[in-house]
Amino acid sequence: MSLIEDLNWRYATKKMNGETVSQEKVDYILEAAWLAPSSSGLQPFEIFVITSPELKAQIQPIAFGQSQIVDGSHLLVFAAWDKYTEERINEVFSRMNAERGLPDSATDDYRKNLIGMLTPMSAEQNFAHAAKQAYISLGLAMAAAAEQKVDATPMEGFNAAELDKLLNLSEKGLRSTAILPLGYRDTANDWLANLKKVRTPKDKFLNFID
Amino acid sequence: MSLIEDLNWRYATKKMNGETVSQEKVDYILEAAWLAPSSSGLQPFEIFVITSPELKAQIQPIAFGQSQIVDGSHLLVFAAWDKYTEERINEVFSRMNAERGLPDSATDDYRKNLIGMLTPMSAEQNFAHAAKQAYISLGLAMAAAAEQKVDATPMEGFNAAELDKLLNLSEKGLRSTAILPLGYRDTANDWLANLKKVRTPKDKFLNFID
Repeated sequence: MSLIEDLNWRYATKKMNGETVSQEKVDYILEAAWLAPSSSGLQPFEIFVITSPELKAQIQPIAFGQSQIVDGSHLLVFAAWDKYTEERINEVFSRMNAERGLPDSATDDYRKNLIGMLTPMSAEQNFAHAAKQAYISLGLAMAAAAEQKVDATPMEGFNAAELDKLLNLSEKGLRSTAILPLGYRDTANDWLANLKKVRTPKDKFLNFID
Repeated sequence: MSLIEDLNWRYATKKMNGETVSQEKVDYILEAAWLAPSSSGLQPFEIFVITSPELKAQIQPIAFGQSQIVDGSHLLVFAAWDKYTEERINEVFSRMNAERGLPDSATDDYRKNLIGMLTPMSAEQNFAHAAKQAYISLGLAMAAAAEQKVDATPMEGFNAAELDKLLNLSEKGLRSTAILPLGYRDTANDWLANLKKVRTPKDKFLNFID
């Protein structure tokens, strides 16, 4: 199957059947999420992988009761850095240089410029920027899931402040930005399963400048 | 090749060789970008596909002179809605219902709730939300490019206000959020081509809650 076939196969599954996604498939999906490119390689987010039935049951009510949260076997929470700090950015570059066998000073100009650009911004602007990087990863996780014939439903419909509290995210300097249950579609009971996939007509979505 | 192999093959190409990406491959990449899921199916962004050498030459200086902009054959500009309006949201739902053979009223509750949630937010919050959706598409475009063995370099390093002016984006109610040159790597002249891909160690990136 090609990526296009996978993207046509997937849809935002509304009803899952409770089957468990194998560890192998979950690992594959997480590998894609981990390999996702990000701005300056910062990867300014983390992923929480929740299988605890108790915790999923606590999350469901703060996410409008969406059933996929408990009927999916794994719930991924994408949580972005709440702000950029010199320390966080330095750590990324130090690791990058070390793994590449380069002196820590190799990227000094770039790193200092980046710190000078990101750290004076407001925490809200920083979080918005970090969250965008998480969404690249979210997209690739969904593509990987579809390739594995695993259903995944991206959700923004949850009380982020409540979820952050439940997962103690502020202690880690994180804020949740999207959640993604993984599981298998219950086609017979899913109102969306057989509806046409609709997208903006291409002539309104694409603009060619030759 | 699997998605994981594709993601390992790709890197943020710093030097492209000027070769032209075929229309067929560009169409494939745009198809993936178009199929990308988005919040409530709004697809709150458009993509500009620039091949004009003159325009690419005008964009290069407002993007720190990055050579891929002119050495890539196609430059994709991801431009997100500058704000959500009742009209924009209604148009999406009307089209969705029409294409699904449902009455326009079928999604009234959901649609009204969404309008009530999004339109009172500030334009900046709206744009941040729309831009996140564009990044899902950006991620899938990069995955599709890698599958086609086309190089793609995601860039945020450009003067968005200047680019918006150059492309008359404000007239369309859009703001640029990321650009993506497509082309082919010039391995011999690319300092990044042979450096190790580095990511945050998985034990710092993934949190398992069983």
